[in-house]
Amino acid sequence: MKRTSRDIRTANRYAVLRHLIAKSPASRGELAEATGLSQATVATLVGELTALGLLVEVGFEESAGGRPRSLVAVDAAGGALVGVDVAETYVHAELFDLALGVVARAEEELRPGESAPEDVVGRIAAAVGAVVAAARRPPRVLGVGVTMPGQVDRERGVAVRAANWGWRDVPLTALLGERLPYPVHLDNPLRAATVAELWFGAARGRDDAVVINLGTGVGAGLALGGTLHRGVTNSAGEWGHTTLVLDGRPCRCGDTGCVEAYVGAPAIMRTLRELAPDSPLLTDEDQTATIGALGRAAAGGDPVALRVVRETARHLGAAVADLVNLLNPEVIVLSSWVAAALGAPLLTEVREAVERHALGSPFAATEIVLSPIPTDPVSLGAATFALEGVLSSPGLTGTTLTPHTT
Amino acid sequence: MKRTSRDIRTANRYAVLRHLIAKSPASRGELAEATGLSQATVATLVGELTALGLLVEVGFEESAGGRPRSLVAVDAAGGALVGVDVAETYVHAELFDLALGVVARAEEELRPGESAPEDVVGRIAAAVGAVVAAARRPPRVLGVGVTMPGQVDRERGVAVRAANWGWRDVPLTALLGERLPYPVHLDNPLRAATVAELWFGAARGRDDAVVINLGTGVGAGLALGGTLHRGVTNSAGEWGHTTLVLDGRPCRCGDTGCVEAYVGAPAIMRTLRELAPDSPLLTDEDQTATIGALGRAAAGGDPVALRVVRETARHLGAAVADLVNLLNPEVIVLSSWVAAALGAPLLTEVREAVERHALGSPFAATEIVLSPIPTDPVSLGAATFALEGVLSSPGLTGTTLTPHTT
Repeated sequence: MKRTSRDIRTANRYAVLRHLIAKSPASRGELAEATGLSQATVATLVGELTALGLLVEVGFEESAGGRPRSLVAVDAAGGALVGVDVAETYVHAELFDLALGVVARAEEELRPGESAPEDVVGRIAAAVGAVVAAARRPPRVLGVGVTMPGQVDRERGVAVRAANWGWRDVPLTALLGERLPYPVHLDNPLRAATVAELWFGAARGRDDAVVINLGTGVGAGLALGGTLHRGVTNSAGEWGHTTLVLDGRPCRCGDTGCVEAYVGAPAIMRTLRELAPDSPLLTDEDQTATIGALGRAAAGGDPVALRVVRETARHLGAAVADLVNLLNPEVIVLSSWVAAALGAPLLTEVREAVERHALGSPFAATEIVLSPIPTDPVSLGAATFALEGVLSSPGLTGTTLTPHTT
Repeated sequence: MKRTSRDIRTANRYAVLRHLIAKSPASRGELAEATGLSQATVATLVGELTALGLLVEVGFEESAGGRPRSLVAVDAAGGALVGVDVAETYVHAELFDLALGVVARAEEELRPGESAPEDVVGRIAAAVGAVVAAARRPPRVLGVGVTMPGQVDRERGVAVRAANWGWRDVPLTALLGERLPYPVHLDNPLRAATVAELWFGAARGRDDAVVINLGTGVGAGLALGGTLHRGVTNSAGEWGHTTLVLDGRPCRCGDTGCVEAYVGAPAIMRTLRELAPDSPLLTDEDQTATIGALGRAAAGGDPVALRVVRETARHLGAAVADLVNLLNPEVIVLSSWVAAALGAPLLTEVREAVERHALGSPFAATEIVLSPIPTDPVSLGAATFALEGVLSSPGLTGTTLTPHTT
């Protein structure tokens, strides 16, 4: 893989900013040590990020052996980013400051039938408008990241395929551009959740991580060699549609026996119906309510709920073991709303099932955890894509730089 | 992932040498263009590789606009490399010149019961001795690459686990060092076959490729982002032990329903026995003979053989589709002796089965091919590891270098 000098410069900007988001303020010397970059490179990068309004000088620190060292910090109020998580049943938007703290949230429901591109674009624009309006002072919005389920062409900003809505080649970024006065970055929720874990969550500082999204749909974001593995057409991660039971349950993708057909939210509801057709946990067809009730019941020791969790984990664990054996990652993160709802009981059962199926050596090397990110990881990751857009902005290359000396 | 300047220097040496192995002679200007490196960097690298005895100046080429340009080429006779493929039933060694052409081959049989470390080390040393003795002139052997099935610690040169032989933490490189006066590099056959495809085969110039080894054991070497994905403990690629049929056939790893339990050589023989218990193709327990006979019969249109190939491909195709969906690679290569023996009939059936199971978009982006490497890819890859050892030799680090990064 040929890396251009621009890729390297962008990656170096990430490195400095990631460190400062985790720990502000810091001196240039600390940043050089933390990132492995030279002092001169760090000075240049800090100059660029300051010129962009992302960093500020915040004073001086006494130095043991000489003159005080100047400190820089993320300028949290220097701008804002919006992350939008578009799912099958809702549009969830969050406004972040530049330290990636949540400033405001808004949610728009997507009712069945409201799935034409203009409906969804309207809901996204409304949600973005709502979070921007909710900020105490009008924010300087640097960019909006939007995630869409299905196959996405991020370069062209097109939703290539959203199977559940019958979408084909919808130019979502262009349509949103007519409604929103901000740069829009489109990607897939799997990759957003993975970037969120890489920057802020359980995959920080790890070279090889897998982030499993457990929702209505199921997928696995892959961070390999420290960066997102996208695949040749940006569709890597369709682990939900790998075969777990050849000739098994039908899957909505048209195949049979897929992982998603056993561990996606509708599949978990089917398992509940099969094990206990009259369960009071079955609240009609409302996935969120049913999975939420199931999680609370399992945490309270309800035997039916625990059987459903165990049966789900039996399948999920075998499929997670496949990832352990194939990819030998350092960490596997269970993310998204189903993982959050089923929580600790699911994690315990999954770990046991993975141990039954995985080879001993890679199993011993892999941590399996619930996502530690307290907010919606998909919105956070979407906002991170917008921030990456700012950092790789070609407008920066013409900036006159005045490197500080330390 | 932090790349050190030494990693980058080694990678640049690879780039120049790979290009020259593919096409010698070349001018420094052509090398700069092909690799994307600066002329100054290429000049430095050519100087280093010439000092190592890997390249020679071979004359001049007329240049359109000025003085003639000097040409360099791989010095095929400047040294030799040995690649050793240790499998469960044989030790296969090949001697290569520096253009990675095969100079000599030798094979030692490993009979059942001959699996103590001293037996295997003796066979490896005998095979290496045989290929070195077979060369017309005593070669300058720069290194020996050895591949071992199972879990390998390449840094320490230890066979951590070879399940079929009951090995645990055998210091193979040290034991071989007592018998062979050459640097020894240990790795796994999966990774060797993958490196062979990356340097010389179907994955040349591809960023994302999967090399499937179909033998007694089954695995998948992963080349992602243009380099080998090893995983955190160098055990990535255990695709043979991912679940295809939950609660299915028992696998020798102790789990059930693994891919290997349906498509490894013993599994194919089991399928043949199940479909046609009295088939004359079943030559006792000899895997190589049976699979060879099966391949010839299928190519000749024998209906029983074709049913076995189809049943194997039904499982193999579903498992290959898992790789397509999860990793979205540019190319999937079917390699090793079972793939070679079943050849075109297997490939045709596998492609159809993959199409039935994979998602449309990543399927359309993935080529599925038989390995085009005419020799044993594992030996070739093992020799390539030895060559990589020469290129990353720390003896070179004193050389004055012009780093490529900015």
